[in-house]
Amino acid sequence: MPKLILVRHGQSEWNEKNLFTGWVDVRLSAVGEKEAKRAGQLLKESNTLPDVLYTSKLSRAIQTANIALSEADRLWIPVTRSWRLNERHYGALQGKDKAATLAEYGEEKFTTWRRSFAVPPPTISDDSEFSQKGDARYKDMDPKVIPATESLSLVIDRLLPYWEDVIAKDLLDGKTVMIAAHGNSLRGLVKHLEGISDDDIAKLNIPTGIPLVFELDDNLVPSKPSYYLDPEAAAAGAAAVANQGKK
Amino acid sequence: MPKLILVRHGQSEWNEKNLFTGWVDVRLSAVGEKEAKRAGQLLKESNTLPDVLYTSKLSRAIQTANIALSEADRLWIPVTRSWRLNERHYGALQGKDKAATLAEYGEEKFTTWRRSFAVPPPTISDDSEFSQKGDARYKDMDPKVIPATESLSLVIDRLLPYWEDVIAKDLLDGKTVMIAAHGNSLRGLVKHLEGISDDDIAKLNIPTGIPLVFELDDNLVPSKPSYYLDPEAAAAGAAAVANQGKK
Repeated sequence: MPKLILVRHGQSEWNEKNLFTGWVDVRLSAVGEKEAKRAGQLLKESNTLPDVLYTSKLSRAIQTANIALSEADRLWIPVTRSWRLNERHYGALQGKDKAATLAEYGEEKFTTWRRSFAVPPPTISDDSEFSQKGDARYKDMDPKVIPATESLSLVIDRLLPYWEDVIAKDLLDGKTVMIAAHGNSLRGLVKHLEGISDDDIAKLNIPTGIPLVFELDDNLVPSKPSYYLDPEAAAAGAAAVANQGKK
Repeated sequence: MPKLILVRHGQSEWNEKNLFTGWVDVRLSAVGEKEAKRAGQLLKESNTLPDVLYTSKLSRAIQTANIALSEADRLWIPVTRSWRLNERHYGALQGKDKAATLAEYGEEKFTTWRRSFAVPPPTISDDSEFSQKGDARYKDMDPKVIPATESLSLVIDRLLPYWEDVIAKDLLDGKTVMIAAHGNSLRGLVKHLEGISDDDIAKLNIPTGIPLVFELDDNLVPSKPSYYLDPEAAAAGAAAVANQGKK
């Protein structure tokens, strides 16, 4: 039976500073490294061991996977990285303080940019220090596709082809697949798997560093409700994410 | 111009204890982690930045690559792992103390097993705790091919098809390729690239944790002598490897 394990990266240096990150390539904080280690322990203790790994192209997701797999003694599994699993591109908000953005633009715009399904933040200019135009890690893709901003809807548009063509294949082969990625790319995938509406997805908060497991049938439809490997910590973590920026 | 970077993993927990390791999956020691970090610094300082990574299926090589690439800010490059890059299988010597083996069998047999081109050590039995039969990381390969012992000659036999079909392709595409692997798999590759004779290869000692760079022409022939990114440290390291077990 195909099994899918989603792991959202732990706290990054910019989560810690309360800045919008998106495609900016910041590292895990010491807290984030601890969360990744805990994720690996949960995988090991529950014997939920991935056969294959997918990550985004961003260091904080890759670090999370490396630390977790080291802990679970699965460093050796095959790994594939894709920009299609990247965090949502936050456009001109990238590099900005969340609390200052909230104060400057007000609750409505702030919440719309963070949580609306289809409204992206303003675009980032190509010459911003926080733009990804010209970043070597994306040199093998059509440069026109590198986003300057994204809504969750646009994230899903670029994520699903990869899910359908690449990740699905490993699951249909009966493998246990782990994806180490980001709050919004994982929300997009969960929306697709659980058929969550465009309105309701705003309320879904995925906690960091706690593996979320889907058991799927032969049509890649969940055969039972998804579950966190540490449900209590997951509930506390989701509440913390929901309150982000409100300080 | 294709460029090839070879990195031999740093000190492992069993190097530290002076045990024959081979395919036994031990981790880096604290010293080995430091060596890997230094390797990454050398890559960064010299601007020798890999586009793509190959590793063996053994954790110590994978840890070395993960640490070095983190240091060089290249965690995001594509990576492929193969058993064909694994260390030489040391047969029945796996798990044995090197100095005790030298004392028990004498200098001639010890040196033959360590350094002869074509004489493998005695085979390991399938039920040994140090055998790799049944190891999950090799479940996707023909079980009959998992070795019970190997000479350097046999290592080259299983390494070259992977070099010719897979790694060569990336180099011919003009990519800078990094291989994180082991003393003997890398010696086999260097023998092939530099046309070293079966006799002379015994004298080649590759130091740990110091990137060795080959600049290749369009026929994947070295266009100039290979070089270490830290030649002084490399000379000292090679001497240390040559004296291993002699204490």
